[in-house]
Amino acid sequence: MSKGRIEAFSDGVIAIIITIMVLELKVPHGESLDALAPLGPVFLSYVLSFVYVGIYWNNHHHMLNAVHTVTGPMLWANLYLLFWLSLFPFATGWVGENHFAAVPSAIYGVVLLMAAIAYWILQQIIITSQGRDSLLRKAVGSDWKGKVSPVLYLAGIATAFWSHWVSQGCYVFVALMWLVPDRRIEKALASRES
Amino acid sequence: MSKGRIEAFSDGVIAIIITIMVLELKVPHGESLDALAPLGPVFLSYVLSFVYVGIYWNNHHHMLNAVHTVTGPMLWANLYLLFWLSLFPFATGWVGENHFAAVPSAIYGVVLLMAAIAYWILQQIIITSQGRDSLLRKAVGSDWKGKVSPVLYLAGIATAFWSHWVSQGCYVFVALMWLVPDRRIEKALASRES
Amino acid sequence: MSKGRIEAFSDGVIAIIITIMVLELKVPHGESLDALAPLGPVFLSYVLSFVYVGIYWNNHHHMLNAVHTVTGPMLWANLYLLFWLSLFPFATGWVGENHFAAVPSAIYGVVLLMAAIAYWILQQIIITSQGRDSLLRKAVGSDWKGKVSPVLYLAGIATAFWSHWVSQGCYVFVALMWLVPDRRIEKALASRES
Amino acid sequence: MSKGRIEAFSDGVIAIIITIMVLELKVPHGESLDALAPLGPVFLSYVLSFVYVGIYWNNHHHMLNAVHTVTGPMLWANLYLLFWLSLFPFATGWVGENHFAAVPSAIYGVVLLMAAIAYWILQQIIITSQGRDSLLRKAVGSDWKGKVSPVLYLAGIATAFWSHWVSQGCYVFVALMWLVPDRRIEKALASRES
Repeated sequence: MSKGRIEAFSDGVIAIIITIMVLELKVPHGESLDALAPLGPVFLSYVLSFVYVGIYWNNHHHMLNAVHTVTGPMLWANLYLLFWLSLFPFATGWVGENHFAAVPSAIYGVVLLMAAIAYWILQQIIITSQGRDSLLRKAVGSDWKGKVSPVLYLAGIATAFWSHWVSQGCYVFVALMWLVPDRRIEKALASRES
Repeated sequence: MSKGRIEAFSDGVIAIIITIMVLELKVPHGESLDALAPLGPVFLSYVLSFVYVGIYWNNHHHMLNAVHTVTGPMLWANLYLLFWLSLFPFATGWVGENHFAAVPSAIYGVVLLMAAIAYWILQQIIITSQGRDSLLRKAVGSDWKGKVSPVLYLAGIATAFWSHWVSQGCYVFVALMWLVPDRRIEKALASRES
Repeated sequence: MSKGRIEAFSDGVIAIIITIMVLELKVPHGESLDALAPLGPVFLSYVLSFVYVGIYWNNHHHMLNAVHTVTGPMLWANLYLLFWLSLFPFATGWVGENHFAAVPSAIYGVVLLMAAIAYWILQQIIITSQGRDSLLRKAVGSDWKGKVSPVLYLAGIATAFWSHWVSQGCYVFVALMWLVPDRRIEKALASRES
Repeated sequence: MSKGRIEAFSDGVIAIIITIMVLELKVPHGESLDALAPLGPVFLSYVLSFVYVGIYWNNHHHMLNAVHTVTGPMLWANLYLLFWLSLFPFATGWVGENHFAAVPSAIYGVVLLMAAIAYWILQQIIITSQGRDSLLRKAVGSDWKGKVSPVLYLAGIATAFWSHWVSQGCYVFVALMWLVPDRRIEKALASRES
């Protein structure tokens, strides 16, 4: 299987996920601004999830850039990642509708955490398949963002039962941390070519 | 990241947006023509938004044609544009269901305005990245359409509270203005080759 | 704009249309076979519409195969076709939920008719753009299917108010007539190469 | 028609199917863990169907890798397969919402069976079109998985009325059996090149 297929399929699934999330933003029945007010938290959680899916799309493609041959395990690890991403619309809708209540906030963090683990598994499978001189291993380097993120997700899950401000703060912080696009792989690729 | 990826992803998201808008056109329960009547405004707002998304798709691709290298900021500016486009189904459904009432009409204009600003930001980032001899800058030229549109959106937002006919008239006028496909970039490309 | 973009975008929109039609097949609340029974007509109309969208996808691509340069009018004619195809899920759901009642059956025929007209317009624009030796004109030939179909749609619309069996019969007959894949363009292409 | 088109369209449809299945996982109204509990079976059936669609996507592409020329019958056999796959969201939602009750479990098996038959038809059409030295025939070999699966689906349908544990067990077993990616075609391709 060529890399193009896995990229096209992942692109398709991620494009649909990022778009159907907006369906949780249900059209209100009233016509006044007051009718929009209850949608505030749903809108905020939509924004956050949109940013997260955007980050995953971005990093996913940087990662696949470093891949030459697609193997069976890679394919399934990729589907496993897409599975957790596909739960974003559900988690987003639930946390938004309940104004960032404790349990939905924690579940939102669990979905973020599982997606991060799935991403890490995919990354490890690609690195292993590339052997000793793995381009991706060099590109990822110490991967401090990848190590800090799960810890912050766990913090977000734990603090959800105490203060949803702190909990959401953790999730927002991780998103901001990743918003800086991942240039490590680009650099490794560039340094190899030179 | 190659240009192909950003094009394919944008195509996917825009294709989904243009299609899920039709889901706001809920199947009526009755079987008579009378059951269709309340759908009239929803249908009209669907037509208008379909045209708008079509215009964005069209111009978006003409713009990307002038791009050589995709940078990180371009990617995020593009996602920012897609974010505002993703709110079209919501705004369309709300304005249609409420028969072009004041607040939904104004919010519809706000979404149009924000999408226009996002498009302008993306355009500026591409122009800046291309430096002095920017092909896109030449292609866009005075960009009078891009300058007039936000003014008309603002007029549409302001007049929504006074007459929804005038407000919708503004939005329809901008759409008609853009329906003439943007041949400026094609011309610039052609003149460069010759 | 390259042909690839218009193909990819059309593919995306048609893939979404063919898939969201199934959303009209709402999950019943009961768990018995009786709970499935009312879905019978919805299922049948889904099958018919699935076949129609499949035919359009098939013929659309055969037609685009004969295109070399994509022009602005082609692009908008294509979007106009996609617009009418996007109404298939709505028309399908309405006719199915109302067990092929008169008005929904007629409206279903109107959507079929409008899509056929849009397809014809796109075809004419491509032929005109290709000038005298139009490959597509030769391929289409007398286009008897394209001429008979609208007549049968009109018959289906008219008879809907008299007998929904005859009306649906017209629509089913047109679908069967087109199910034989359109090899005319393939033949014209093959004869040109030889 | 090039192979690329049929691949891209199938990718699009399958990507949408795998993603809209998650829409059956309706956002609960409560904010406690108890509100999540009734979603348990819906979630489990979602996981199973996600794996099934993933398997079909995987095998579909391995199969198309062995295709050189796309013919009309192939195209329609492919659409027939997509049709049955498009019923996965419905069957998944119904079986999940009714906690694996008898009739929904049987219908779920029927959809699985029909998709398997559609896949087999497509495979036969490709093999026939390739003539005596069919690469796909060699690759598929005895196709014991393809022969065992329908038997197990039938077993799942029959036992649904007796014990839903056994019924679901059949479906889960087939999924696990296929999860081992289909390397037969890859091998045949590799051995041919060498």
